[in-house]
Amino acid sequence: MSGTASTAGPTNTASTASPACTAHDLTFGQRFLERAESFGPVCVGIDPHASLLEQWGLPVSVKGVEAFTRTCVEAFRDSACVVKPQVAFYEAFGSAGFAILERAIADLRSSGVLVIADAKRGDIGSTMAGYARAWLDDESPLCVDAVTVSPYLGVGSLQPVFDLAEETNRGAIVLAATSNPEAPGLQLATVPSEPSECEKSDTASSDTLTVAQSVVDAVARTNAGHVGAGNMGVVVGATVQQPPSLARVNGLILMPGVGAQGGTMADVRRIAAGAEQLACPNVSRSVLSQGPDVDALRETLATTTAAILN
Amino acid sequence: MSGTASTAGPTNTASTASPACTAHDLTFGQRFLERAESFGPVCVGIDPHASLLEQWGLPVSVKGVEAFTRTCVEAFRDSACVVKPQVAFYEAFGSAGFAILERAIADLRSSGVLVIADAKRGDIGSTMAGYARAWLDDESPLCVDAVTVSPYLGVGSLQPVFDLAEETNRGAIVLAATSNPEAPGLQLATVPSEPSECEKSDTASSDTLTVAQSVVDAVARTNAGHVGAGNMGVVVGATVQQPPSLARVNGLILMPGVGAQGGTMADVRRIAAGAEQLACPNVSRSVLSQGPDVDALRETLATTTAAILN
Repeated sequence: MSGTASTAGPTNTASTASPACTAHDLTFGQRFLERAESFGPVCVGIDPHASLLEQWGLPVSVKGVEAFTRTCVEAFRDSACVVKPQVAFYEAFGSAGFAILERAIADLRSSGVLVIADAKRGDIGSTMAGYARAWLDDESPLCVDAVTVSPYLGVGSLQPVFDLAEETNRGAIVLAATSNPEAPGLQLATVPSEPSECEKSDTASSDTLTVAQSVVDAVARTNAGHVGAGNMGVVVGATVQQPPSLARVNGLILMPGVGAQGGTMADVRRIAAGAEQLACPNVSRSVLSQGPDVDALRETLATTTAAILN
Repeated sequence: MSGTASTAGPTNTASTASPACTAHDLTFGQRFLERAESFGPVCVGIDPHASLLEQWGLPVSVKGVEAFTRTCVEAFRDSACVVKPQVAFYEAFGSAGFAILERAIADLRSSGVLVIADAKRGDIGSTMAGYARAWLDDESPLCVDAVTVSPYLGVGSLQPVFDLAEETNRGAIVLAATSNPEAPGLQLATVPSEPSECEKSDTASSDTLTVAQSVVDAVARTNAGHVGAGNMGVVVGATVQQPPSLARVNGLILMPGVGAQGGTMADVRRIAAGAEQLACPNVSRSVLSQGPDVDALRETLATTTAAILN
């Protein structure tokens, strides 16, 4: 981002960007499907929180986060389908933390592994456009393959990030239904359903649908024009009790909660019914707890992936 | 944040922190009421988006954002009640943007003006604790008086930031009802109301209440133990058509949408009925458009504040 480029709308800067950060021919969803054929569909987290740093014998400091991240990059850059750094653990150290994240993103993306920044950003108008540029613009030092976003201000408020995602074939993955115990109160609140027959969700048998389903349906509409899979995705926990219908989502389904948190591949298949190939189970603790040995991290990711596929 | 301090729970580090960033004797809400007596209740935004940078004759770059921010700090540090930097416009430039924000926060807080970081963060568990540390921990370079947070994962998921806010007498301001056209679908979705009589909202005449009201009620419960005003607040737009009842919120009511966006002080008083003294109207464009002259910025803030109070 330089010169007088406007942040109000996306600009095509691919020609001047580094090769690792140019716009793509395939959608984010298509690139996920392609890489999953070789590596399996699993996303592994990079979560340098205090207890893991201590477990790895590292200080809870910028230096500790840096060492943890370097090890994760080495372990996963050529062995994972998708990696997902958790932005909060970098933000906790301010600009020094973001500098570590920028280096990790550059190293990971130069290897071809897909990178999802778990940021859960959400705002409106030019402010949302600012977040879109931070995470999806070719010239941003934080440019990744996809970013997670939060729809409390309405899915429509996320349009600036959807627009830049469509332009660059990067991804925006919207929180829909999560596994934490505090979530259902809001995510299962009811809203009037869409009137159009063709857009109606499979589960919308009455005049109302849940907030979570309305988020999934909005993402499905955005993805509908793409063959295979579009650029937008949803977050749906693998241990959610009343999941939304995902059959028509046509984009990546990021599913935390597999492994240590109790979710199984049977849960993933049941919840993602009709869109199973788009399910991207996320594992973090069960793999990261085997560090800091790089080979042990790689082996655990491989065995976890194999277990999930069988 | 250093050494082996755990990020799983807050630690008392006030004794080693700089004077500008120690824990407080008064709650965030009480400090707002105190400063509003001298300066009026207005919050002024620091929003270095592209169109304003261009209007000020600045490049849309790190240098432009830095110059814009420096001018705002000079103009508002001794003249405003509350300033609210919009984090997205710094994040758009990665670690270099965050470094600018850190310096601005340090300069502003050393003057005594209250600083709200408009970040709208929201996550769960140790991740939410990471965001709490980033914005409310004495030792974080981003430590501010209050941070805005987003409740899509359930208000209960914000507990780690509420805990650190209570411990340090800093603030967490939760999105409740916003003015953007995409908001009502989710924020007016209906949830079962709380069963307890004493906690019931004034407007909850039936068995259901809106998501926005449930957020306000949860914040009110958290603030109930404090005299005057507690540490938690809510965001409610000044142009919201069906606002939640705010009479019992007992914390700061941040109200964007006043001025250029059409909200008036009559709207503010009507929406904040029963808690008028806690309303904090936010102005941004109408003041910032008068820059980059420092005196013009100060004068516009003063006339805007006077107009709002009359």
